Amino acid sequence: MPPNLPLLLTMGDAAGIGPECIVRAFVEGAAANSVVIGDVGVLRRAAALRPGLPVPIARIEVPADVAQVPPGCLPVIEPADLPAALADLPWGRIDARCGAAAAQCIAAAVDLVQHGQGAAIVTAPLHKEALAAAGVDFPGHTEMLQALAARAVAGGTLPPVRMMLANEELRVVLVTIHLALRRAIEAVTFDAVLQTLRIAHDSAARWGQPCPRIGVAGLNPHAGEGGLFGDEELRIIGPAVQAARAEGIDASGPHAPDTVFMRARAVVGHPGEFDLVVAMTHDHGLIPVKYLGVEHGVNVTLGLPFVRTSPDHGTAFDIAGHGRADASSLKAALGMARALVQGRATPSRGGT
Amino acid sequence: MPPNLPLLLTMGDAAGIGPECIVRAFVEGAAANSVVIGDVGVLRRAAALRPGLPVPIARIEVPADVAQVPPGCLPVIEPADLPAALADLPWGRIDARCGAAAAQCIAAAVDLVQHGQGAAIVTAPLHKEALAAAGVDFPGHTEMLQALAARAVAGGTLPPVRMMLANEELRVVLVTIHLALRRAIEAVTFDAVLQTLRIAHDSAARWGQPCPRIGVAGLNPHAGEGGLFGDEELRIIGPAVQAARAEGIDASGPHAPDTVFMRARAVVGHPGEFDLVVAMTHDHGLIPVKYLGVEHGVNVTLGLPFVRTSPDHGTAFDIAGHGRADASSLKAALGMARALVQGRATPSRGGT
Repeated sequence: MPPNLPLLLTMGDAAGIGPECIVRAFVEGAAANSVVIGDVGVLRRAAALRPGLPVPIARIEVPADVAQVPPGCLPVIEPADLPAALADLPWGRIDARCGAAAAQCIAAAVDLVQHGQGAAIVTAPLHKEALAAAGVDFPGHTEMLQALAARAVAGGTLPPVRMMLANEELRVVLVTIHLALRRAIEAVTFDAVLQTLRIAHDSAARWGQPCPRIGVAGLNPHAGEGGLFGDEELRIIGPAVQAARAEGIDASGPHAPDTVFMRARAVVGHPGEFDLVVAMTHDHGLIPVKYLGVEHGVNVTLGLPFVRTSPDHGTAFDIAGHGRADASSLKAALGMARALVQGRATPSRGGT
Repeated sequence: MPPNLPLLLTMGDAAGIGPECIVRAFVEGAAANSVVIGDVGVLRRAAALRPGLPVPIARIEVPADVAQVPPGCLPVIEPADLPAALADLPWGRIDARCGAAAAQCIAAAVDLVQHGQGAAIVTAPLHKEALAAAGVDFPGHTEMLQALAARAVAGGTLPPVRMMLANEELRVVLVTIHLALRRAIEAVTFDAVLQTLRIAHDSAARWGQPCPRIGVAGLNPHAGEGGLFGDEELRIIGPAVQAARAEGIDASGPHAPDTVFMRARAVVGHPGEFDLVVAMTHDHGLIPVKYLGVEHGVNVTLGLPFVRTSPDHGTAFDIAGHGRADASSLKAALGMARALVQGRATPSRGGT
């Protein structure tokens, strides 16, 4: 793909902090050669939150037009048929129209990237209840991107994908994500764990780390303590780790969930024992990544036919519209998307 | 109770790092006015791991004898009928005899503290599989201490207890502990959550914090996101938080598990939003406490009729007998036990 294709940045939920984070990342110089896929009115409202003259919005039709946009103007492509008057909706409220618009922007971005008009997709946060209220059949970004990606493939098979959360210290790939914990336990199968290990292994090779050391977390306290507190480690996770090892994947475990993240943590003077941790549940994996601050984390979807990153926080309805949202994680997501597209770097830390 | 009663320090699993941590804490001055409840041979073997002349062991019969022990000698009370030749068992192996001995030491310590001969109990780590191999009916320390405490009470009702893990930044009280995750979900009931909130609230008052701000973590991803990913928050946890608030407990939530710990984290320049977090499962709570290093964490059992603390790590069979185990967490546990007994301080951080 041409190296100068722009990044496509979806606006997320119009009532959340996504639009103001986008404006802020742009003003702070982190969104060069990027195009927002969103509602012009919503972006204008977000731009007006900043002190001084608002950032002008330049509506364009195709990503390539970004080259003609004057410096200092934020380029926006507006998908057809967005709900009307989105910018009149209150900040911080769940609204089906915001959910519908967020989904339309994502669909438009996938269409553009699959037609070679964008380098990668960076998504601002959406609100899952607004999405559900709009009748969108997917619980979140990841599932929607997976389905949209499948449409372009003969047969339409869903590509297996996994969510990775990464910050400077830690990278975690999740076996299950947006499921009730009861259902997540059922979804921890031999195939799901082995597939996660394959996706993590293959993805790391693409970012220049051909055989990452993968620490696999257990599901139960103390990784089941030899079967005393649950047998998923003996029945499912352990055999999947062994199967992965037989394929040449450098996986180990299952390790106790409460210490494997500490062991993987890489800081100056304390290299981690693992390059990646595979976690069975959403919160086992996300608690440690977020513990030191969500502003440092980036979400990367592994397994899609295009690069997709996003900030590691939600819509923050409680502060939306106040103009004080922190754009650090969005800026990090933009930086990581660019790095992954160019194949020149690793998410966040070093790459050796 | 007389302020000069000694702390009672149980040796834990003889094949783990407990004995060498005890010797090290003693040599490093952290175990003044403390008596080990353990096997003399095992402690001698641990003392011999250190370079130079081994620390002499002084076998005593009752805790009060500690005052007669010469400086530099480690006082040990040996319970009757310990398994023979424990010190000949290999380091780092699960052995029913080690499990049995660990349980006997705990029982002896509880007996002493309940007869007014000790100020508090500090427990070195045991190995749960060794305990099970010995036919001990309790999965871990906490359950055993609870049952032993009940024996002294008329009617023998088990006192409701909860595990708290604390370090300099974070204090977490757990609703469930050593259960398979499937069973832990079933154990998250209205009564269990409300009782946890009451125990946490009452315990904090005892350490000088009369109305702690308690953040309650949800069970499901995003705390169920309004019922989309599980309904325990709506059916169980939310109502329990409301019931606690009606009793004057400053509880809030349920909050998303992946960010509540970050929000509670207290560091210089960033006071936490909560004084305590109540977590539904073992690993939701322990992952963040351990993330920055187990050497800083202390385990406190809340709700017992006596003070009990322990280090926040296990037997570490992989390094047992190498003489390089870190005693920091045991030293912190000794310090916290002393502080709690004297009512002069809070576990780890400040107390306001």
